[in-house]
Amino acid sequence: MEFQRSGISLIYRLEIANKGNTFAKVASLVGNAGGDIAAVDVIRVTQDVVVRDVTINVANRDHGRQIADLLDAEPGIHVVAVSDRTFLVHLGGKLEVQPKIQVKNREDLSRVYTPHVARVCEAIHEDPSKAFQLTIKRNTVAVVSDGTAVLGLGDIGPYAAMPVMEGKAMLFKQFAGVDAFPICLDTKDPDEIVETVKRIAPAFGGINLEDISSPRCFYIEERLKQELDIPVFHDDQHGTAVVMLAGLMNAAKLVGKKLEDLKVVIVGIGAAGVACTKMLLSAGVKNIIGVTLEGILHRGKEYDNEVWNWYKEHTNPDNITGTLDDAIVGADVFIGVSGPGVLTVDHLKKMAPDPIVFAMANPTPEIEPEVAAPYVRVLATGRSDYPNQINNLLCFPGMFKGALAARASTINEEMKLAAAQAIASIIRENELREDYIIPSVFNQAVVQRVADAVAEAARRTGVARREVMPKDNY
Amino acid sequence: MEFQRSGISLIYRLEIANKGNTFAKVASLVGNAGGDIAAVDVIRVTQDVVVRDVTINVANRDHGRQIADLLDAEPGIHVVAVSDRTFLVHLGGKLEVQPKIQVKNREDLSRVYTPHVARVCEAIHEDPSKAFQLTIKRNTVAVVSDGTAVLGLGDIGPYAAMPVMEGKAMLFKQFAGVDAFPICLDTKDPDEIVETVKRIAPAFGGINLEDISSPRCFYIEERLKQELDIPVFHDDQHGTAVVMLAGLMNAAKLVGKKLEDLKVVIVGIGAAGVACTKMLLSAGVKNIIGVTLEGILHRGKEYDNEVWNWYKEHTNPDNITGTLDDAIVGADVFIGVSGPGVLTVDHLKKMAPDPIVFAMANPTPEIEPEVAAPYVRVLATGRSDYPNQINNLLCFPGMFKGALAARASTINEEMKLAAAQAIASIIRENELREDYIIPSVFNQAVVQRVADAVAEAARRTGVARREVMPKDNY
Repeated sequence: MEFQRSGISLIYRLEIANKGNTFAKVASLVGNAGGDIAAVDVIRVTQDVVVRDVTINVANRDHGRQIADLLDAEPGIHVVAVSDRTFLVHLGGKLEVQPKIQVKNREDLSRVYTPHVARVCEAIHEDPSKAFQLTIKRNTVAVVSDGTAVLGLGDIGPYAAMPVMEGKAMLFKQFAGVDAFPICLDTKDPDEIVETVKRIAPAFGGINLEDISSPRCFYIEERLKQELDIPVFHDDQHGTAVVMLAGLMNAAKLVGKKLEDLKVVIVGIGAAGVACTKMLLSAGVKNIIGVTLEGILHRGKEYDNEVWNWYKEHTNPDNITGTLDDAIVGADVFIGVSGPGVLTVDHLKKMAPDPIVFAMANPTPEIEPEVAAPYVRVLATGRSDYPNQINNLLCFPGMFKGALAARASTINEEMKLAAAQAIASIIRENELREDYIIPSVFNQAVVQRVADAVAEAARRTGVARREVMPKDNY
Repeated sequence: MEFQRSGISLIYRLEIANKGNTFAKVASLVGNAGGDIAAVDVIRVTQDVVVRDVTINVANRDHGRQIADLLDAEPGIHVVAVSDRTFLVHLGGKLEVQPKIQVKNREDLSRVYTPHVARVCEAIHEDPSKAFQLTIKRNTVAVVSDGTAVLGLGDIGPYAAMPVMEGKAMLFKQFAGVDAFPICLDTKDPDEIVETVKRIAPAFGGINLEDISSPRCFYIEERLKQELDIPVFHDDQHGTAVVMLAGLMNAAKLVGKKLEDLKVVIVGIGAAGVACTKMLLSAGVKNIIGVTLEGILHRGKEYDNEVWNWYKEHTNPDNITGTLDDAIVGADVFIGVSGPGVLTVDHLKKMAPDPIVFAMANPTPEIEPEVAAPYVRVLATGRSDYPNQINNLLCFPGMFKGALAARASTINEEMKLAAAQAIASIIRENELREDYIIPSVFNQAVVQRVADAVAEAARRTGVARREVMPKDNY
């Protein structure tokens, strides 16, 4: 069971001598070595050997190699190959680009391609806004990364970032029907990134920025938002912020507090921390204290990081100073987008009654949930193995689905607020519980609810370019 | 029938008063106006009206509007909408990005995305060549255009070019199983194009350049070939050249001449003309005369176009001068990649016995096939409504399929020659006829034959990076 949680499941292809019960030997070797056999398949039987695929859950890669060596050392057993189940699902990539219609004959060919495609090209040439009707721009998002801040792995570059971006594109399609294509950029220069995205924009109806390190991500997103007329959304910032706010709306409701009365402490003022703060300000929260490794951000200090100078001007109304130890006193809400061990039981004891703690550091939260549990009323994390997971997947598919449906020129604060309210609204008031403030990512009602709310907000705020589906395409 | 050839087929949605035989009125109006009713579908019937979709083949768009106006003017008939069948197949674009595997539950999610995707990212970070195994790079091609030379339409820009690039991507998938994604660039600066393609290259295993104007296309392709380690192929140049050579190999066989003995005149020394010339030189043709609007390219003149200066040094062994009238005397082969009306019957009469004419200007060949027929032995065009169509679709799907299979770092002359031979070889010697020197684009044997030949040539010339499928992905 523990090994299943490691998630490493290896498939050993074994050639086993075809005499006596040699497989019993395999089973006992694996068992003694601490491996857990999950499946056995016979691939081929000859007079001399049986070839079997044996799936074994192991603790880690070294453990997997150990078992392979043990098996190979045994007379009558030969390890032909070892494959990793996780790697197998990634083999050859996880996406394909499919035609929506099949070209079966000459007439089909002449309609989708030369010569008749020329008339479609001419129509767009005369009126470029028709690109939204007559090309994939209508429903396609670029998932753009430079690979500088991938998961918890840091700057691993564009090649290594691809599996994540492909995974994200899969989720776009499966959850929202939105076509998404991964673009991993072989440059880290912010201006080059902006230029490149602008140059490839014609094919796309939206840009999802992903895993770009802070503070570069702010500049890149800001410039692209200003210079492109399609939505640009850095999911690590705003996706996290939207889902956090959805959870906080429900948590506040549960403990009977109003957003505007909350004292909120945020630790980790990087991309996600800043976005969470802006989202909370938009939602009406007035007292927010930002804390970094240098302490509370306040107006008595000049920071190298320009974003922190912005931050100190827009938060911390009482201009308090010190560290988290000081900030946390009387706080209603702790929001962590930092790292493990930041929050202690002593901190929790200093908070106001009914503490709300969002410990979202990944993979290890700011405080172990089991340790925090006795001292908090509502606890949320970024992890799937505890209740109340703050997962961007609740936001980005519906966000882009709604923005594309409205043919929005941007994603503004009202659209993000609407998305947060939509996610929160999935849980009815009488269903709210300390361990159920946020819906599951597999709740199928979420995407459409979010999309509708986002499209409606786009129309209300004047950034939509489509009211209804066009009927006449002549 | 003539209207079908115009390819314009409109769907008129009509609201027709539900009394008497009003549809008979529609039929007679359309017939009198010269329209051809192809289909009638009832959409909805109420007490007062019948709503019908009537598909009508028309001569051109004005004719279509005329018919709409006529119908609308008739009492009891209201035209609700007119849609164009060709436009309908392009609605919303022609491609979608599909996950190869479905994410059904939490375990799937954790394998394709966080947290376990991190192990796949780390494996690529340690060994970037694994991107070819573990990402879509293995089988994905970018179809890149700046929209400067789209079909016969010229510089219509990146938005209007999208329908063509989407169509091309469809054909890649359907004909060869290669995933292709359209990238239309919002810049015409050659250096910016090169930079941009280099920056987005990590996701791709190959770059198909398309519809980029000459002579910019030479510089762009050359730099990308040098600076990227994946195949870069400007299809308008090399696809045309490969298929032309395939046809010429079979035509020469048919008339009993050897390639090295041919005198070949090429008119139109742009992208395709230069590529055809290089292809012919690679195939052993020795006497090639290039002709432009300025006359025969020869070593007595200095040209503004740098490519023409290269050209004069590598062709025209006898350094003849003059115009097409001079060049064509005694020529075995005429290859036209220019425009209509360039070639006359007088020219044909001056050619050597058994003239071979490839009049590939699109959509109107250098000479009308009916006019040329009595004076030539073998005639090929770029059109689908005559025999012997020189169509790039015979080359690019198999070319990239083979290059990707071999994980080739480039597409070299040997690979192009191998592709031409493969296409030519589809027609057995005893099947060769004057009107059958090149297989149909719907001949399903072509793609695999080309792919195998290309992969084999890549291995032979040392540019392949994969011999067989890797078995062990641990």
